Amino acid sequence: MYRTHTCGELRLQHKGTGVTLAGWVQRIRNLGGMTFIDLRDRYGITQLVINDSASAEIKDAASRLGREFVIQATGAVTERLSKNNKIPTGDVEITVTALHVLNAAETPPFTIEDESDGGEELRARFRYLDLRRNPLRRALELRHQMAREVRSYLDSQQFLEIETPFLIKSTPEGARDFVVPSRMNPGEFYALPQSPQTFKQLLMVSGYDRYFQIVRCFRDEDLRADRQPEFTQIDCEMAFVEREDVLRTFEGLAKHLFKTVLRKELTASFPRMSYADAMQYYGSDKPDIRFDMRIANLTGALKGKGFAVFDSAAYIGGICVEGGATYTRKQLDELTEWVKRPQIGAKGLAYVRLTAEGVKSSIDKFYTPDELQQAAAAFPAREGDLLLILSGDAKKTLDALGALRIEMGNRLGLRRNDVFAPLWVYDFPLLEWDGETQRFYAMHHPFTAPKPDDLDKFYTNDNALLAQVNANAYDFVLNGVEIGGGSIRIYDAKVQQRMFEVLGFSKEEAAYKFGFIINAFKYGAPPHGGIAFGFDRWCALFGGQETIRDYIAFPKNNAGRDVMLDAPSKIDGAQLKELQLMSGERSTSTEEG
Amino acid sequence: MYRTHTCGELRLQHKGTGVTLAGWVQRIRNLGGMTFIDLRDRYGITQLVINDSASAEIKDAASRLGREFVIQATGAVTERLSKNNKIPTGDVEITVTALHVLNAAETPPFTIEDESDGGEELRARFRYLDLRRNPLRRALELRHQMAREVRSYLDSQQFLEIETPFLIKSTPEGARDFVVPSRMNPGEFYALPQSPQTFKQLLMVSGYDRYFQIVRCFRDEDLRADRQPEFTQIDCEMAFVEREDVLRTFEGLAKHLFKTVLRKELTASFPRMSYADAMQYYGSDKPDIRFDMRIANLTGALKGKGFAVFDSAAYIGGICVEGGATYTRKQLDELTEWVKRPQIGAKGLAYVRLTAEGVKSSIDKFYTPDELQQAAAAFPAREGDLLLILSGDAKKTLDALGALRIEMGNRLGLRRNDVFAPLWVYDFPLLEWDGETQRFYAMHHPFTAPKPDDLDKFYTNDNALLAQVNANAYDFVLNGVEIGGGSIRIYDAKVQQRMFEVLGFSKEEAAYKFGFIINAFKYGAPPHGGIAFGFDRWCALFGGQETIRDYIAFPKNNAGRDVMLDAPSKIDGAQLKELQLMSGERSTSTEEG
Repeated sequence: MYRTHTCGELRLQHKGTGVTLAGWVQRIRNLGGMTFIDLRDRYGITQLVINDSASAEIKDAASRLGREFVIQATGAVTERLSKNNKIPTGDVEITVTALHVLNAAETPPFTIEDESDGGEELRARFRYLDLRRNPLRRALELRHQMAREVRSYLDSQQFLEIETPFLIKSTPEGARDFVVPSRMNPGEFYALPQSPQTFKQLLMVSGYDRYFQIVRCFRDEDLRADRQPEFTQIDCEMAFVEREDVLRTFEGLAKHLFKTVLRKELTASFPRMSYADAMQYYGSDKPDIRFDMRIANLTGALKGKGFAVFDSAAYIGGICVEGGATYTRKQLDELTEWVKRPQIGAKGLAYVRLTAEGVKSSIDKFYTPDELQQAAAAFPAREGDLLLILSGDAKKTLDALGALRIEMGNRLGLRRNDVFAPLWVYDFPLLEWDGETQRFYAMHHPFTAPKPDDLDKFYTNDNALLAQVNANAYDFVLNGVEIGGGSIRIYDAKVQQRMFEVLGFSKEEAAYKFGFIINAFKYGAPPHGGIAFGFDRWCALFGGQETIRDYIAFPKNNAGRDVMLDAPSKIDGAQLKELQLMSGERSTSTEEG
Repeated sequence: MYRTHTCGELRLQHKGTGVTLAGWVQRIRNLGGMTFIDLRDRYGITQLVINDSASAEIKDAASRLGREFVIQATGAVTERLSKNNKIPTGDVEITVTALHVLNAAETPPFTIEDESDGGEELRARFRYLDLRRNPLRRALELRHQMAREVRSYLDSQQFLEIETPFLIKSTPEGARDFVVPSRMNPGEFYALPQSPQTFKQLLMVSGYDRYFQIVRCFRDEDLRADRQPEFTQIDCEMAFVEREDVLRTFEGLAKHLFKTVLRKELTASFPRMSYADAMQYYGSDKPDIRFDMRIANLTGALKGKGFAVFDSAAYIGGICVEGGATYTRKQLDELTEWVKRPQIGAKGLAYVRLTAEGVKSSIDKFYTPDELQQAAAAFPAREGDLLLILSGDAKKTLDALGALRIEMGNRLGLRRNDVFAPLWVYDFPLLEWDGETQRFYAMHHPFTAPKPDDLDKFYTNDNALLAQVNANAYDFVLNGVEIGGGSIRIYDAKVQQRMFEVLGFSKEEAAYKFGFIINAFKYGAPPHGGIAFGFDRWCALFGGQETIRDYIAFPKNNAGRDVMLDAPSKIDGAQLKELQLMSGERSTSTEEG
């Protein structure tokens, strides 16, 4: 070892001990003939001091040091004259008696500090330097700890971690697959898994009973902000269970993580909400319940009173901002502009201020104070509050109200990242109609079971009834972010065949893509269900961050590129030829030639 | 839950308890009006009994059961009249009072027994049924336990598990990369990692100090027996270490696994052997030291005595088979045929039997008994032993002797799969000359450091001297199988540049492929080293098996195919078009048209 101790472990009790440390030069200061060096490693920072009495050799070496040099220093632990109580090693310093430069460093292109002066693009190119900064180190340490505790809990619950293949068959249904050309089987391709869904179900058929895996998944999507083409899932499945068993087991997992990683004991059961309630009260299938501010349906109270905008609306709804009656006209105008942005898409915003002097509203031309008080009672709102009201198509208006609610939560500081509000959402629709392709898609995935009560509807050919079928599915939501989603699965080959039929697959197509799982169900499939969690996002949330990028050691940018590696990239002709592939560019020129 | 207990947990102490079990029907027997059902799940087998007094409904349900049906049975735990001491639940049975068929099963295409009647190909197609068999279940349980204990040990040693990307840049050097066409960057490709080598070194540059990952790796090789295109590594790296630190740390890992997984306490240090000794004494860079039978160099003793075959040989060597003097002529002829097989490639086999009646040899026309006794003294061999002697080119003859030694170990039962002999092999050559491409290849990989003593040779342009440079590399060998390999790395940008130069890379080529790591080394790289273990193989060895296939839930066959999924497969034209790819077949027809 190049060291006897790390830079994070020396304390006053080590006083007088001879030690050798190794690490990176964080900072150098010269003060009246003495040189102070902050030496950094993963574990902390320890101050080195080179006294005036040090050898010429050491002084010379010290004079040539720069930021981020890698050095090894030997000396005695001494008590500091001026202690630094901001770091655990702040009571001591090392009086250096030997100093070796292990490796020099060019000046890094940005500062290695908690707040760096480097822009995002520059830091991405030099990711290996960005990773030296404390916030990223802490993020990866948290991730390690999260993974360890996930495994510890699931192992204690008799789950087996079983690895599933990465080179599988392409069966896109929803997102696009990344594919891998096979050299040994020219013209054929493997696909990278979007999730191990079918494998974990096969493992249930195989009797493995409780499976999990922390596993990389791949989706070739047009990237939205904060999506990655490869991401990590905590993938889980259980046999002989009903929904309640799955929720209880994974509520246990979440509580274990809160306790061991965040030192938060959550004793109460997590709240649960139906999809229908989530949509009508929060305008979202993933409500942030750190704050209340529920949406009230004001259609009954405000429709048909002569205000044309509302009278022509299918739905009128609002939120109540507590204490918001003091909002100025300017603030309200700004909010109106905010809801009119294309991302939100509202036509306008009505408000009602409940002041000591009575009701003041943008719509008081059309409504009596009593009528507005009636609307206020729907929340119920109190004096000092502000009602913000939108109208229009029900779905769109609820979406907009949901977004406005989150915005107000942000503005009012109600979404603190050290407060955690977990929630189960359940009873999602099974199917979504796609107008463009004129077919149903599975809202969750094609293996999700319809609720037993809705089986009659599931077997009709009436699209209106099919659209009403609920899935035995559930999401785990944390602070308004969907962290996990799962369902009780179909385990009857005939029901699975029917599901493929509803999704518009021909028998042949279903057999080609999913024959192995339909067949597997014929040989004794147990009832089963499971869930998968977005591990990157869960780590980010526990770290108090909205973006996942800092919780992934080597992420890709929004164009799916690794700018550090410069990948993807061209491959050489010999490789292409071996794969019997030509890129489109080349085959096009062939056609022209 | 569909059950109150598993099929593995009921004991006499549960007598009288009402329970519900769920599982698969392993066996049904009718005996004098009573029906006995062995109900199986992952945890064990419990006997159900349906008495003559059971309801007609239950009897009827029972009469329609078949093997592998999934059922749920309720009843009281009762003491068995005839106990079965072969299974932990053998003292009890369940007197069934309710029976539900959860899912029927077609007759499986092979028996779900420890020894199945299904052939390998059939079982691969129905892998989900093969996985129900105990040997496979135990294999995957062992794998889970191995992974858990690897993580537990490395976590206790301050290693962080850090995930590295799967969509990286293609830099083939040795094996072929699997590549992934990028839809968003037409004409460009990602590659799947052959190992996270460069990433773990970057993490050392980033200061992470102790990294590990249990991670999938990919190699597009022509598959030999028992190789998989995707396989799992325990990948590890440490900073501020020398070879000794790495060996000590991972010897600790191995001992921890022996102790926790196999209940074997290994207290002594693992033996170590230089590559040169391994080759000269065992004819292998991965000696199986469960048995001795070392190769002796007999060139001095037997060359130049007038036997033309030996006199013209560069090398003469042999092994001593203890107690082998009783081998019959027929056995020796058969061994001679064995060494002449093309895989071994020896021209012939000389033998010397040391009997009570004196030396009896196939070469006693050419040697006096004294001369043969001198050769015997080289081992030393004793009365009753048999010497087997080969000659020829040194390297080939040592290889053949190594293979013969293993074969004799097998024949003599010296390679028991419950005996474990770990070994470190060190000081491998840095470079291998490839006659075909007329260049050096890195024997380990291009990031392995030359031994400091050999740096002078490393900087010559004399190929003979370069071939003598030793690497600071080491392998972990268990029972003649290479389980792990690693090295101290180059951490100086200039030495790394020199390495690329020795490997025949132009500056531009090195910069294009590995620019990011050469650059990273300029910003303060610490001394570092590491190791990677073949996890599949380690699991198989601990399970007492030579083949890894049963230790992978869903393996591929020797043609790289998943016969259960039928992957790889054709993908549809729309997918190809989006990727701007055409398969070779199509572009060829374009050229013809």
